[in-house]
Parts: sequence; structure tokens; C-alpha cells
Amino acid sequence: MHPAPHPIVPLYPQDTDQDHMADQLASTSRLEAFSDGVIAVIITIMVLELKVPHENGVAGFRSILPTLAIYFISFSFTAIYWLNHHHLVHRIEQTDQRILYANLAFLFCLSLLPFFTSYVLEKESDAFSVALYAASMVITGFSFLLLRLAIEHRLRIATALEPLDTAIQRKHLLSLAFYGLAIPLAYFHPSLALADIALVTLIWIVPAGGTKPCDEDSR
Amino acid sequence: MHPAPHPIVPLYPQDTDQDHMADQLASTSRLEAFSDGVIAVIITIMVLELKVPHENGVAGFRSILPTLAIYFISFSFTAIYWLNHHHLVHRIEQTDQRILYANLAFLFCLSLLPFFTSYVLEKESDAFSVALYAASMVITGFSFLLLRLAIEHRLRIATALEPLDTAIQRKHLLSLAFYGLAIPLAYFHPSLALADIALVTLIWIVPAGGTKPCDEDSR
Amino acid sequence: MHPAPHPIVPLYPQDTDQDHMADQLASTSRLEAFSDGVIAVIITIMVLELKVPHENGVAGFRSILPTLAIYFISFSFTAIYWLNHHHLVHRIEQTDQRILYANLAFLFCLSLLPFFTSYVLEKESDAFSVALYAASMVITGFSFLLLRLAIEHRLRIATALEPLDTAIQRKHLLSLAFYGLAIPLAYFHPSLALADIALVTLIWIVPAGGTKPCDEDSR
Amino acid sequence: MHPAPHPIVPLYPQDTDQDHMADQLASTSRLEAFSDGVIAVIITIMVLELKVPHENGVAGFRSILPTLAIYFISFSFTAIYWLNHHHLVHRIEQTDQRILYANLAFLFCLSLLPFFTSYVLEKESDAFSVALYAASMVITGFSFLLLRLAIEHRLRIATALEPLDTAIQRKHLLSLAFYGLAIPLAYFHPSLALADIALVTLIWIVPAGGTKPCDEDSR
Repeated sequence: MHPAPHPIVPLYPQDTDQDHMADQLASTSRLEAFSDGVIAVIITIMVLELKVPHENGVAGFRSILPTLAIYFISFSFTAIYWLNHHHLVHRIEQTDQRILYANLAFLFCLSLLPFFTSYVLEKESDAFSVALYAASMVITGFSFLLLRLAIEHRLRIATALEPLDTAIQRKHLLSLAFYGLAIPLAYFHPSLALADIALVTLIWIVPAGGTKPCDEDSR
Repeated sequence: MHPAPHPIVPLYPQDTDQDHMADQLASTSRLEAFSDGVIAVIITIMVLELKVPHENGVAGFRSILPTLAIYFISFSFTAIYWLNHHHLVHRIEQTDQRILYANLAFLFCLSLLPFFTSYVLEKESDAFSVALYAASMVITGFSFLLLRLAIEHRLRIATALEPLDTAIQRKHLLSLAFYGLAIPLAYFHPSLALADIALVTLIWIVPAGGTKPCDEDSR
Repeated sequence: MHPAPHPIVPLYPQDTDQDHMADQLASTSRLEAFSDGVIAVIITIMVLELKVPHENGVAGFRSILPTLAIYFISFSFTAIYWLNHHHLVHRIEQTDQRILYANLAFLFCLSLLPFFTSYVLEKESDAFSVALYAASMVITGFSFLLLRLAIEHRLRIATALEPLDTAIQRKHLLSLAFYGLAIPLAYFHPSLALADIALVTLIWIVPAGGTKPCDEDSR
Repeated sequence: MHPAPHPIVPLYPQDTDQDHMADQLASTSRLEAFSDGVIAVIITIMVLELKVPHENGVAGFRSILPTLAIYFISFSFTAIYWLNHHHLVHRIEQTDQRILYANLAFLFCLSLLPFFTSYVLEKESDAFSVALYAASMVITGFSFLLLRLAIEHRLRIATALEPLDTAIQRKHLLSLAFYGLAIPLAYFHPSLALADIALVTLIWIVPAGGTKPCDEDSR
């Protein structure tokens, strides 16, 4: 049980002994389990913000279509980050303190999304609320990049593991640019800003230039 | 770490090396864990829609019995899909991007169920709200079939695994027909449409023609 | 690992091949993960029923103490059933359809607890609401016994596993008697009925007659 | 299957036989999974307490900044306890009844945090509500120390495992002192009390005196 000469003291030095696998499963699995739990609650409680219209029949349903569209945008945003989180955390075998704190910061930013979603809904997508919504996405995106940096740092220490792909990094920066663009756009035309945010989903789903999105990170 | 000559690039090519099992467990387990989390929240937050009646005593409780019946229908619907999801995902050892996206689309559709449940409750089961409720079930059912297709595609690649049983497939199509039938039925008689939806639960619980439901998929 | 001549077709016949352990882990783990998720949401969303008093200062807080007491009773009830569920499911290595359906029935009954808790809170513990609360606990208790029966059936098939202890069974029946007693008691004196329900927690925590509660089941 | 001569009867005596590892994973993993689920819901439903301001534009957003600050304090508090729970439970390989009950008591205390957070928000951080908020943190902190004691007891029995570090213990006591101090401070100046509570986050994030916080426990 000797402290390794790492710049960061590994959290679970006992995994040098025989029950190596069990420890690793435990360490990564709990970070994943907690994050999955938080993201699952975030993605689902947003549906509580959807309000049944007063009007009856088709007219009532038609009146809530914009609301459903915004719910769809928020759901997609959270789903994309869950996918990226899944691929990123899958790369490491052990967490360290830096990763744990970066992960909590990311979850904090993401946890505000249901609030900013209901902000947009209650203010009926006025310029300021849409700008706020886009800003919260920019901040969440930045916090994810911090988590990525923390994991890259870990991968550099454990040299046996392959580095992260830069293609995904470019995709993240492009997404941030789109979210950032939505802030001024909201003052010009709120619906255009929402369309711009929704467009980012396509960046992640449609393979760009023959490359398979999300795949690169785990290749 | 050479790209395999598959039609789909496997997400976790490193599972060709020695820590094969750990990787597989991780990949399937996180898809399952996240889905379980989302479905657990969906099935449980619907209880928040149940409102305590203003009236006291037995009369008050009797007035909310229709509400409890609709909660029961929504709970059963979600439970049946959890069971089917459980059996389906259990069949594969690895996820791929197609499966991940199909799964997210399925979770999105299912996440709207609490909203459409409260729609029916607030509109007191009028024709349009019941038709909407049935339509949301049809869409969720279709999204599950997409997930099933994505998993069948995966199973075809990994030829060592057994194909999905077609008996379950017939059961799914029968369920969809019943949910679809409930849409026009809602305009004829809403309660009849709800009874028709509730009937689908029996298709899944009662073994039809000597076969064991749900079992076939994993046989 | 020969296919046993079972009356029930095993859900995962492929565990006759080499990756036996992985399959078992998967099967039990998903039942547990989903149940844990649902119970975790049930136990936590009850806190949303707690309303901040209008009155300021100590007087306001004192006015919500009965509310907190009922929250504590509901939390304890759920916690006891989680503990028992934990010990029970731990005994089996594989689930079957009977267990899966019994488990869903149990989760359905338990999921109504937050509703009946808010019923008691809004009706300020009047006789009918307390009787309803106790009745929902009786039904949940019965559904747990059904789950226990399904698991006992499984254990009888897999003869290598030890049968369930009858001491726990007696404790369950005693709890049911107490919950049942609370129904008529509620009409006599609601607070007495609540005290009777709270008393059941002690049956599970305090070791009765030198035996260790909950332990027996897994011995 | 002989009962071991321990002062506490081990919950899973069958882990003396060959499927030792699977049993251990099951036992610790379900305690962790349930705790993760409960903590994930606690940390996330607090966002439902955030209310969209009536006022439009920047002024409206500025008016909710104190609310966001309190949400941040509650999130940090829960996150710190999740981290500590993670490190603590990671140390043991098996749970026993003492640990299970201590864990449930801890989760009960923590589950009240969303309620006391909304208490502070609705009373607009008046002296009494802030004192109550701090008091709930003190009680949660004490319940965590009970869990720590239960785990220390387990570690003493399983002598092969290393004892818990006292540096973390000091940090816990220091945190409790800060939370305790906030109670009288709330009557002097509520904002000062909130700042004092927020300060505790720094104790856990910033390494004190060259030691790595949280790491010691698992070294």
C-alpha cells in the first residue's frame, strides 16, 4: 500500500492489490450512478412544467405546441450531455478529486435547466428569458469542458489509456458558439434563437463529414 | 486498436482486449441504469398529479376513484414497457449509437405520459383528452418498435446471439392496434376507450395460447 | 449447468453457457436498480407535500410539527419495506415472471403512499383519512407478502438455496395486524391510530426476543 | 454455513463460500444505489422550489439572485455529503444492520433539506428560518457522524481493513461548529449566517494545510 509518485494521489491506492477489478467498478460506477440519477431526474421533472391548457379540444392542444417544442429542446440538450458524459466517463477507470468536483459543478449547471426552461415558458419566450436560457446552456457547456479537462488530465497520468479525440472537442466548441450566438439573437428574434439552439441537436445526431459523432471519443 | 470491418463501427473497440467483460458490463449497464432512472421517475411523479378531494369522508374518496383508475392505467403502461425494455436490452451485450438514440427517443415519448395523464385528469376524461392520451401511447409504442429494430440490427451483426422472437413482435403490434383503436373510440365513448387501453395490460399479463408472455424474447 | 426440469421456463436460458455470472448479475441487478429508483423517488417526493407555514417564527414551526411527524411515519414505512425488499431479493439469483409482476404490484401499492400521506395532511388527520392511510399500508403489506410468496416459489425450485425464515414472516403478519387495527382505531381516535402505525417501526428496529430483526432472512 | 463468532452476526454469511465476490458487490452496491437515488432526487427537486419572478427582464432576474444563492448553498451541502458518503461507504465491503439503519437516519435528515430550503426562500431569509436551516444542517451532520461510527465499528471487526483517518473527522467537527454557529448568528444577521454556511463548502474544497481533503479517508 505505497503512495504512488503521481502528481495526484490516486483515490483508491488499494486497487494495486488483488481485488483490483471490484474497486474500479465501485469507483467509476458510483460517479456514473449518481450522475445518471441526477440527469434522469432533471430530464424528467421538466415535464412537470408542462401545464394543461384551459381551453378544450384541438385549440387547447394547439396552444401548448410551442411549450412542447421548448420541452423537446431541453430534453435533447440534456440527452446530448448524458451521451457525452457516458462516452467521456467510460474512458477512465478511476476517478480523482478533480473529476468528482468538476462533475458536481457540471451537474449543478445542468440542474438549473428545468428552472430556466420554466422561465422561458412562463415569460412566453420573451427576449430576455430566451437569452437567459441560452446563457445557461453556454455555462453548462463550459462546465462540461472543465470535466473534459479533468478527465484529460487523468488520462495523461494513466499513459496506458488513449487520449481524447479532438474531433469531439471541435464539436463541443461549435455547440458553444451556437448557444452563445443565441444570446444576442434572442433580442433580435426569440424564435430564431430557439431554432438556433435546436439546430445544435443536429450537430450531434447527423454524422458530419463522414465521421460518426460521439464515436470518436471512445475509439 | 484497428477499426473492425463492421457495417457499424463498434462503440467500444477496446473490448477486443483483455478487460472485455468490464467494458461490456459498463456499456450496457449505463444505458440500463439511465433508462431505469428515467422510467422510475416517470412512473412515480405521476402520483403528484393525484389531487386530494375537497369533500370529506367516503364521498370524497369515491369521487377520486376514476382518477385512481387512470393512474393505474398509466402505471401499468409504464410497467409493461419497463418489462419489455428489460427483456430487450438484456439480449444485447453492447450498445451502439443507433440503439442509444432510439432509446432516448423512446424515453422522450414515455416522458410525456405524466403530462397526458394529467391532461386526461384535468379535462375529466373528455373525448379529445382521451384521444390524445391514446395517441401518446401509440407514439410511445412506435418508438419502442424503433428501439427493437435497432437492437435487432445489432443482433444480426453479432451473429452468435439469437434473433428476437416474432411472438412478442405480434403482441406489440396487437397492443398498438388497441391503442390506435382507442383514438376514434374516445369520440364515441371516452370510458370505452379507457377500458380498451386498460385491456392491453391483460394481453401482457395473461399468457396467450399457452405461451409465456415476455419469456419468448429471452428464450 | 444442465437445464433443470423446471415447471417454470427460466427467463434467461442462455445462462447455461459460459457467461453465467454476468447474466445473473444483470437480471437481479435490474430488478433491484428499478425498485431502488422507484422507492428512492417515493421516499423523497413526499417532502414536496410539506408546506411552509404562513405564520412566522417558532409558532409557525410548531404548527407544522404534526405534519413532520406524519412525514416521519411515511418515511419509516417506506424505509422498512426497502430494507425488507433488499433482504428478500438478495436471496435469489434469478428473477422470473411471477417475481417481476409481484414486484411491480408491490411498487404500485407503495407508490400510492405519497398520495395518501398528502390526503392525511390536507384533511388534518381526520378519521377517514387516517383509516385510508392505514388501509393503504395494509394493502402494501399484502402485496409485499405476494412478492415474498413468489420468491419462496423460486427458492423451492432452486433447491440449492435455503428457504426463507419464518420469524420474518411472523413479523410481517404482526405488522399487518397493527396496520389493520389502525383502520377501526382511526374512527375512535385518529392520533391513537397514527401512534399504532408508528409503533410498527419499533417492531422492525428493536430486536424481539433476542433475535436480530431482518438478519434472519439472510442467514 | 456456520454462524461466525462475531459480536455482530454478518448479514451475508454465505459469502464465506465460493460466490464471495458477487455477494459483496450486491450488498454494498444496493446500499449505494439506494442512497445515490435518494440523494440524486433530493439535490434535484430543490430546483422545483425556484420560482420564476413576476417582473420581466433583467430586474426580474436580479430579484431572484438571492434565491439562486440559497439553492447553490443547499446543492453544495448535499454534494459535500454525497462525496463524503461515497468515500466512507467505499471503505467497507459489507454492510450490517447498524450501518443500514444509520444510513436511513442520515437520508431522513438530508431529505428534509429541500423543505427547509423552501422555508428560507418563502420567509425571505428571516432570522428564524435561517436558524432552522442551519439547525437542520447540524442534525444532518450529526446523523452522518453516526453513520461514520457504525462504519468504524464494522472496520474494527474486519481488522484487515484500515481504520478511518482522523483528519476527516476533525473536518466534520469543524463543519458542525460552523453550522452550529450559524444558528445564533441568524438572529444577529441572517445574511451573515448564510455566508457562514456557504464558507463550509470551502473547508471541503480547498486543501487545508497541504492535506488533500476527502482523499485521506480512502488512503
